[in-house]
Amino acid sequence: MKIIVSTNKKQDLIDITERVNDLVRKSGVEEGVCVVFVRHATAALIINENYDPNICIDFLNALNKAFPEHAGYLHDKVDNNAAAHIKAAILGPGETIIIEKGKLKLGTWQALMLVELDGPRSNREVEVRIIKTC
Amino acid sequence: MKIIVSTNKKQDLIDITERVNDLVRKSGVEEGVCVVFVRHATAALIINENYDPNICIDFLNALNKAFPEHAGYLHDKVDNNAAAHIKAAILGPGETIIIEKGKLKLGTWQALMLVELDGPRSNREVEVRIIKTC
Amino acid sequence: MKIIVSTNKKQDLIDITERVNDLVRKSGVEEGVCVVFVRHATAALIINENYDPNICIDFLNALNKAFPEHAGYLHDKVDNNAAAHIKAAILGPGETIIIEKGKLKLGTWQALMLVELDGPRSNREVEVRIIKTC
Repeated sequence: MKIIVSTNKKQDLIDITERVNDLVRKSGVEEGVCVVFVRHATAALIINENYDPNICIDFLNALNKAFPEHAGYLHDKVDNNAAAHIKAAILGPGETIIIEKGKLKLGTWQALMLVELDGPRSNREVEVRIIKTC
Repeated sequence: MKIIVSTNKKQDLIDITERVNDLVRKSGVEEGVCVVFVRHATAALIINENYDPNICIDFLNALNKAFPEHAGYLHDKVDNNAAAHIKAAILGPGETIIIEKGKLKLGTWQALMLVELDGPRSNREVEVRIIKTC
Repeated sequence: MKIIVSTNKKQDLIDITERVNDLVRKSGVEEGVCVVFVRHATAALIINENYDPNICIDFLNALNKAFPEHAGYLHDKVDNNAAAHIKAAILGPGETIIIEKGKLKLGTWQALMLVELDGPRSNREVEVRIIKTC
């Protein structure tokens, strides 16, 4: 199972919780875990709040301050996106989320988001697998 | 399966290894993996040493230096805890740990810790699921 | 299942994708997920590009800038490796990767790498477990 995410900006956070929940529902699995994995080296997945969308802005700004763009990176001579690789590696491509009663068991303030770090891109692939527990 | 963690400070690391190991033992599963997930957007899970408790202090200080509190965040106007969200998103809410012979197979210097970033809180929920492997 | 990784420098990134793929192949599992976990508190796992090896250099440099060595850490008085612990805790010891058609389903530019943060060490242990999905 897979979802394709299209991004519109250089950097962005895109909520994919409901799209992954749709796949969980279709699987018919009531109790288990869901493995979500983005297959790119300049994107990542995080889980956090986006009810206040300012958190997404604060998050990207803080990340850019700690790991600034174009800070003399060697890879910038090749692709000019070294900082995107660095941030993607730190955040990581995957999340494993518990499924209960056929739904992702996230907290009230948690959403699953794709982190675009080198966009815009038209087809970020996110693979989804579901494992039953007893 | 779930454990509830109570925290006493604004920021803290609380070792939950033995509480999760108790749940693994109760499950009767000898070989498998254990998925642990904190259902909050201002807390996280990490795995590291706490035999020398100074590592916990060093860890929180270093994190606060890289991602400082109240650095002009937009979300601070709403909840005054933007930095806690940012740090929680970077550390991540989950860990997947191998089970061998009915126990978490951590290294000698590894402990599973809840990272409180916006405490104190009386009921941080940590969900635990166990998957058998063959 | 386990692989042992030997490291030659204080800090290094070592590609272990093919060694983990060998274990996946040997398991005979065609569809599933693979849990990889390094059992040390001064090493970690990341997934990113190393086709251009400069990304590995940029990554370690950026990490060292955000979390500098010997910045007055308390644990340095004991073991002189506090920064290695801090970085390992932030990057995390584990990755969960999807298996498809008997192989790790990574993106074109993704490789699984052990991050050595306090080397050189002759036997970094990486545990590998495989879970079938339907």
